[in-house]
Amino acid sequence: MFITFEGIDGCGKSTQARMLQERITAHFQAQESATAQSSSSRNSSSKEIVFVRDPGNTAVSEAIRAIVLDKSHNSMTFRTELLLYAAARAQLVDTCIRPALERGAIVISDRFVDSTTAYQGFGRNLSLADIHAANMLATSGIMPDCTFFLHIPLHEAKTRSSEKTADRIESAGDAFFERVIQGYTQLAQSFPQRVKMLDAAQNADALHEEIWGIIENVRLMR
Amino acid sequence: MFITFEGIDGCGKSTQARMLQERITAHFQAQESATAQSSSSRNSSSKEIVFVRDPGNTAVSEAIRAIVLDKSHNSMTFRTELLLYAAARAQLVDTCIRPALERGAIVISDRFVDSTTAYQGFGRNLSLADIHAANMLATSGIMPDCTFFLHIPLHEAKTRSSEKTADRIESAGDAFFERVIQGYTQLAQSFPQRVKMLDAAQNADALHEEIWGIIENVRLMR
Repeated sequence: MFITFEGIDGCGKSTQARMLQERITAHFQAQESATAQSSSSRNSSSKEIVFVRDPGNTAVSEAIRAIVLDKSHNSMTFRTELLLYAAARAQLVDTCIRPALERGAIVISDRFVDSTTAYQGFGRNLSLADIHAANMLATSGIMPDCTFFLHIPLHEAKTRSSEKTADRIESAGDAFFERVIQGYTQLAQSFPQRVKMLDAAQNADALHEEIWGIIENVRLMR
Repeated sequence: MFITFEGIDGCGKSTQARMLQERITAHFQAQESATAQSSSSRNSSSKEIVFVRDPGNTAVSEAIRAIVLDKSHNSMTFRTELLLYAAARAQLVDTCIRPALERGAIVISDRFVDSTTAYQGFGRNLSLADIHAANMLATSGIMPDCTFFLHIPLHEAKTRSSEKTADRIESAGDAFFERVIQGYTQLAQSFPQRVKMLDAAQNADALHEEIWGIIENVRLMR
């Protein structure tokens, strides 16, 4: 099972991803202790949960991430940006995500291919054919089973993340981020089975319960 | 006009590219002075010649090049390598090569898309479909008019470049480089109009004359 979180910075993705990780861990621990009580089997092993962020997690991906976000690289073209994100993702997929899924782990990723569609496709106005080609090269076809798009109005996201210094992407301006939000919204409309658009302006605990309900409902946990 | 030089390290690419650049400069200077003698026009401007290396030339591309060649990145996957070269090339194409060609300049590049086909396609055994997709994303279709593949046996190239410390790509082993040479040879066979395979084991001046003859013959200079 592969779950991804998407949305603009300040939407609460990372918090929700961590909360889900803890909930899943607790869920399997409860299941395990129930199994241990009802039988003498000691073979039930804990479910492995792998948490990643894209771009990131590996030394190579972090080095690429640093190039992309470096504000001194103001001459970086949009296609270069697209291909750098694809390179970082390829490393993450090949060394973390695919092996984890093959081991039967649950993988939770803070951002994945939908970020590319929203930011480089809608935000940067690159063609969706180029976006698709780059995403295929990066993932060799691995797609999330379930994606949470945490929707929040831009002004609210800006309030939440106002304390930190903006990186190269974060400095792109309001019109850019409005297009990104529009891109995510369109993804949720185009792929309603996979991409769930949720109101991220609500209380974090309430949002978490909504996410947990979806995970249980789509029965991905079985 | 867009001319590229290809081959394994130690084949003399960089030397030949520089020699050609100087020869073209001298050719146009001679033409200009002939024009100046036969007319009073002062409007004949020098032909612009732009020399680039791929990956490289721009700050962003050099930063990417440093990641690709860093020997500590020994966990880098082949698809990541492919996409990093594509990212560096996209930057070079968008900020140097395309604008130069649009200005009417002659562009000479030390390596370009054929390196990706030879190294990542044949050398790393990535699918040629993936190579083609990455090359298209990197170049948006800009291709050289004329490519010189400087062929040299591996043992000779190694003798020539033995003094310097090998980077991550150069440490890939003999079987890898034999596949790269095989890849270049196949490109020359598949695209004989564009890719000229030349004997780079010969004397540098003789090789230069052969290259100059081809440039004159294909009438790219007119």
